[in-house]
Amino acid sequence: MKLQTPMIIVNFKTYLESTGKRALELAKQAEKASKETGVCIVVAPQFADIAKITEAVEIPVFAQHIDPIKPGNCTGHILAESVKEAGAVGTLINHSERQLKLSEIDSIITLAREKGLVSCVCANNPSVSAAIAAMQPDITSVEPPELIGTGVSVSKAKPEVVTDTVKLVHRVNPQMTILCGAGISQAEDVSLALKLGTRGVLVASGIVKAKDPYNVLREFADATK
Amino acid sequence: MKLQTPMIIVNFKTYLESTGKRALELAKQAEKASKETGVCIVVAPQFADIAKITEAVEIPVFAQHIDPIKPGNCTGHILAESVKEAGAVGTLINHSERQLKLSEIDSIITLAREKGLVSCVCANNPSVSAAIAAMQPDITSVEPPELIGTGVSVSKAKPEVVTDTVKLVHRVNPQMTILCGAGISQAEDVSLALKLGTRGVLVASGIVKAKDPYNVLREFADATK
Amino acid sequence: MKLQTPMIIVNFKTYLESTGKRALELAKQAEKASKETGVCIVVAPQFADIAKITEAVEIPVFAQHIDPIKPGNCTGHILAESVKEAGAVGTLINHSERQLKLSEIDSIITLAREKGLVSCVCANNPSVSAAIAAMQPDITSVEPPELIGTGVSVSKAKPEVVTDTVKLVHRVNPQMTILCGAGISQAEDVSLALKLGTRGVLVASGIVKAKDPYNVLREFADATK
Amino acid sequence: MKLQTPMIIVNFKTYLESTGKRALELAKQAEKASKETGVCIVVAPQFADIAKITEAVEIPVFAQHIDPIKPGNCTGHILAESVKEAGAVGTLINHSERQLKLSEIDSIITLAREKGLVSCVCANNPSVSAAIAAMQPDITSVEPPELIGTGVSVSKAKPEVVTDTVKLVHRVNPQMTILCGAGISQAEDVSLALKLGTRGVLVASGIVKAKDPYNVLREFADATK
Repeated sequence: MKLQTPMIIVNFKTYLESTGKRALELAKQAEKASKETGVCIVVAPQFADIAKITEAVEIPVFAQHIDPIKPGNCTGHILAESVKEAGAVGTLINHSERQLKLSEIDSIITLAREKGLVSCVCANNPSVSAAIAAMQPDITSVEPPELIGTGVSVSKAKPEVVTDTVKLVHRVNPQMTILCGAGISQAEDVSLALKLGTRGVLVASGIVKAKDPYNVLREFADATK
Repeated sequence: MKLQTPMIIVNFKTYLESTGKRALELAKQAEKASKETGVCIVVAPQFADIAKITEAVEIPVFAQHIDPIKPGNCTGHILAESVKEAGAVGTLINHSERQLKLSEIDSIITLAREKGLVSCVCANNPSVSAAIAAMQPDITSVEPPELIGTGVSVSKAKPEVVTDTVKLVHRVNPQMTILCGAGISQAEDVSLALKLGTRGVLVASGIVKAKDPYNVLREFADATK
Repeated sequence: MKLQTPMIIVNFKTYLESTGKRALELAKQAEKASKETGVCIVVAPQFADIAKITEAVEIPVFAQHIDPIKPGNCTGHILAESVKEAGAVGTLINHSERQLKLSEIDSIITLAREKGLVSCVCANNPSVSAAIAAMQPDITSVEPPELIGTGVSVSKAKPEVVTDTVKLVHRVNPQMTILCGAGISQAEDVSLALKLGTRGVLVASGIVKAKDPYNVLREFADATK
Repeated sequence: MKLQTPMIIVNFKTYLESTGKRALELAKQAEKASKETGVCIVVAPQFADIAKITEAVEIPVFAQHIDPIKPGNCTGHILAESVKEAGAVGTLINHSERQLKLSEIDSIITLAREKGLVSCVCANNPSVSAAIAAMQPDITSVEPPELIGTGVSVSKAKPEVVTDTVKLVHRVNPQMTILCGAGISQAEDVSLALKLGTRGVLVASGIVKAKDPYNVLREFADATK
């Protein structure tokens, strides 16, 4: 599966505002913003919410993580086949809040490819982004951990992190889709991210905690044009 | 919430036979066996399957794991509130395939109590079972890892593990519900487990991989009487 | 090996003030304070410093951690036999900065017993202390993580943590030696710790970062009498 | 510091044959083989043995691992400054038996560079090797985990793993020193490794468990010429 760019991925994390019924509601608002603007908006809810959301909306749904496992004796782990059967079409990997061993990331990228899931691997800096690019996922997203949840956006506060990532990643893998995240909370953070060479953004609290997530998503989507 | 004993907990693990639609079907068979025998049968499916199963059946549903986290910035983790809103009434904790740090187990037991989830903490031997008992969960289940998935049952092959667990746990916490697991595949493994002092069993492949899970569960349930 | 109580364990952590030559110097000052007061003072330096320190001083030396492994294919891990041959007579286990899975703690306690190493297992609260007591190590030390390195001592700020630990641990294991730590920086923190029912303290920055560690250790040692 | 190539790194792991006094003896034999042949032989003993070995021999000594930490509150961890003061001039990183998160590997490579330690990062396959190359360590060593300790050498059994690694790594970083390991037990395994494009080998049981480690090391060293 190949997703359209520019894209906005909304990471629901484990906020109460994006759990259960409220996750479903948020996904519907994301779908509305996506349909009205024609911009690809992906939602990444918690595992227990994937099935209900994929039944209710047509926009792409990602898992927040999958484990490097085969079916069988893996109590409490996240099986690729399980999130896929629930309707997910891709997955975040190695988010700064769910970091993985290097060989696990490599295994999960391969696994996602085999199962037809889009892989979006997160990085904390340009050097790690380049390492990820060498393993050929579909998407990499750079997020300086110190800006996550601050409302101070990476594209404004650390534009060099984004431009260095674009440079290093494209040296290793010229076709890779690059996103950036951390602190994205205004439409201009999004337009700036695209000017710096990315193909979209990975957002969380800027949408999940917004008073009117639909409006903010519309603005973000318009800002990608 | 207080569950009736004796009880049988069916851990769906990450088998393909207990993923998605097949998980739902298996849960229905467990419910049928439970209703016909009056014995408490709990199912513990993968996270993505919890919501659909709790809508379809009335028997108790457990998560296979929850994380020691509060709502918020915990991408890829399992929030107690999430599995609870999906309908789970309890959770496995520290299964040998998803082991946790000691302080995490303590935090999760407290968290489960606060959220009204039944806590079933797994142990690999009597000494670890006693340690768990000191942290006051609702249930502890002892499972020698070397017997898991073998079809050679703990109650037959290592009865002293079960009796030592019962002795040590009840010294620390006389009211604790004790289960045992690993290799449980025949009705007599279940009746023997109860004779050794437990209040039930934790089973996985013995049910999930059975040709006729309903029949095996009926036999297991009858064997608890 | 059985250590004399009351005891003071000085955890060198990974401070530069307690690395290499400065670790050796600090160990000699601890030995001097121990010999002059007759109080048992244990030092727990970094792994690379154990051998030189055990050659130079006669007081007991602990490792800061050992791994639950057998000799062989365990690159980068800490083998009990290695720290023992370097002269260590015991080890800290599960310090809040080096937490372990429950079954690992149980394995390491057994391993330490087999190899003749004194085991001192750390806990973050009374409930976890009781869990540890059930696994029968030689010593348990309770340290509320939020007070570590603050200079605000557990014995003054949270005396109920210490008394609850003593009560719960002795219910499980009446003979267990109990220490407390976190924020211990004055002699009266030590005397108070003993009044609350412990047999000594686990200290780090209060000694390592002191202008005159020897003097502070003398005061601490006198305060145990 | 820049090490001469071709090189042979002997990973002492946690074998009893390479612990304590026997580690010191083995390091002396490695030094003898190195001096007689003029080939660079590095030894990587356990942490507790580094100081004594660096005092006794002149060949380079590596740690088996360091942690991505600064001096301070890191009980039980491996501080770069500690192994450096003990005389180590480099370190293995991410050995298959001590795997690390991706961002940790990146941090440790930077840390090693700052502290003047040679960094040798291990990989399990060509794709992971290329990821490592993007983070600019001094050396990368590819070792298929399934061959480690088997006596079946990677250079004979899986030459394509080595040649693919050389190709992918040099595309990302043309100057990087590449080694290979796993199952290296005969002189021809070494010469073949060099023919496949590496600059040396990472060996463990082939030397540590040999009846006459000195003789085997001499043969290995001669085979690099």
